[in-house]
Amino acid sequence: MSSLQIVIVGIGMIGGSLGLALKEAWGEEVRVTGVDNDQAALATALSTGAIDAALSLLDEKIAAADVVFLCTPVLQMTGLVKKMAPFLKAGTILTDVGSTKKRLNEQIVAMLPAYIEYIGGHPMAGREKSGITAADKNLFRNKGYILIREQNTSIRALERVRQLIQKTGAIIYLMNADEHDHCAAVISHVPHVAAAALVNLLHCYPEPDTISKLAGGGFQDTTRIASSNADMWADICLTNGAAIIDGLEKMQLIVNQVIEDIRQQKRPALHNYFCLAKQRRDELLKKAQL
Amino acid sequence: MSSLQIVIVGIGMIGGSLGLALKEAWGEEVRVTGVDNDQAALATALSTGAIDAALSLLDEKIAAADVVFLCTPVLQMTGLVKKMAPFLKAGTILTDVGSTKKRLNEQIVAMLPAYIEYIGGHPMAGREKSGITAADKNLFRNKGYILIREQNTSIRALERVRQLIQKTGAIIYLMNADEHDHCAAVISHVPHVAAAALVNLLHCYPEPDTISKLAGGGFQDTTRIASSNADMWADICLTNGAAIIDGLEKMQLIVNQVIEDIRQQKRPALHNYFCLAKQRRDELLKKAQL
Repeated sequence: MSSLQIVIVGIGMIGGSLGLALKEAWGEEVRVTGVDNDQAALATALSTGAIDAALSLLDEKIAAADVVFLCTPVLQMTGLVKKMAPFLKAGTILTDVGSTKKRLNEQIVAMLPAYIEYIGGHPMAGREKSGITAADKNLFRNKGYILIREQNTSIRALERVRQLIQKTGAIIYLMNADEHDHCAAVISHVPHVAAAALVNLLHCYPEPDTISKLAGGGFQDTTRIASSNADMWADICLTNGAAIIDGLEKMQLIVNQVIEDIRQQKRPALHNYFCLAKQRRDELLKKAQL
Repeated sequence: MSSLQIVIVGIGMIGGSLGLALKEAWGEEVRVTGVDNDQAALATALSTGAIDAALSLLDEKIAAADVVFLCTPVLQMTGLVKKMAPFLKAGTILTDVGSTKKRLNEQIVAMLPAYIEYIGGHPMAGREKSGITAADKNLFRNKGYILIREQNTSIRALERVRQLIQKTGAIIYLMNADEHDHCAAVISHVPHVAAAALVNLLHCYPEPDTISKLAGGGFQDTTRIASSNADMWADICLTNGAAIIDGLEKMQLIVNQVIEDIRQQKRPALHNYFCLAKQRRDELLKKAQL
């Protein structure tokens, strides 16, 4: 039996980790080809074994692909799909790892020929490091990986992608694109904006260096995700704007109430605020199977 | 030579860690006595060796203390000082580990007899766990520990406290109470309020449980400090209100600008926002000697 031909477009931290993880899980049953503008990234991926071969995007050999993973920043994806689609054979499954799903799902489904099946995906495995050198074959292990199931989603394609990814150790969740985008805004996108705000806040003061010296583990943890890839996060804000704005505005209301309670020295209200946050986070850690 | 008599009032995570760390660093040169309302905490501290003996607050034996560490929530401290002061002998040094310093410094200095010297302190070693069972002899190692130096601070007392603590592996910084409170608001207090806001935000949505399932390492890190002791944080908000409100309001302005940039789909502005945060955090990690 010949190997399943996998093409990964975008050999960064996620794309590279996916190559390593799929090859580790499936061995000879898969063959992974990498596509990237960055020749150095491709060379590294080849030497670390994240990919078996490299191709340029418009090479006809891409027609051999059974499954294509798009692993670039979200706003580059539709342009890439447009270029690639004419080269892909009937029955090819296209999936992606973008952090926002609704807009992408609509755009990609609209531009794909009917004989190519699209399954949106989102691994909940972000790290603050980026690039192929940060790739890790265990990135997905015991982490959530959301696959998008809409009314018109091909069950065959969904099961294929689910099967492929599950063996990397990821925990698969199914939801529709709208649910995904609302959940992701609250659990991931709003916290990213807030973490970046806390770092940028230091520079609203005259001596950020003096302040920085005092930064202990608490500050470092709270702002860890602020060291993420800026291109990716700009794209996320633009492609999930409504849900993110909704979350940020709700957060502003919460913070305004705290300001008011401090101003009025309302200790019971402040105590309750921190108490609820502690209880809720402690419960969340228990419930999250991640 | 007889041992230095140390009394720790409040045998929680910090008080217990201080007992363990001072005994580890100084061995037979110190003798640590613990004071707490919680008899079970005292028993645990005795059995783990965090303290050598236990006393009740109003016991006359407290007169033997050379150095007293106050390790309770900030708002309990002045009440305790009032009760203890009459029992303390001339030359006793009183210090504390409270997270806010200006108000406390003014109040304690005003109520202490002139023959007792007060040195405000603040270990930058918070953890989300609390209680004696979370005590750790290495808690202070390579962490910042701020000691407050005002114009009227006794240099003898400051040097004594500095010497004692430095041997636990802490890195000592000197600043005045006002500087401390502004820095701490930005680096610690505002991030705590924000982290708690991000957790409480989940409960502004109809299905917090579904959302919680998606919480990966990013959310868990960003909100780690939201699992801290609620009493302590309510007190911090009340005793450093002006600086915290100032920081929260500046953060609100930053977030408002992000909302506006998303609404107007300004990619360069959003990219710059995340880019600056990444650069600044990466620099901060390099500079922080912690």
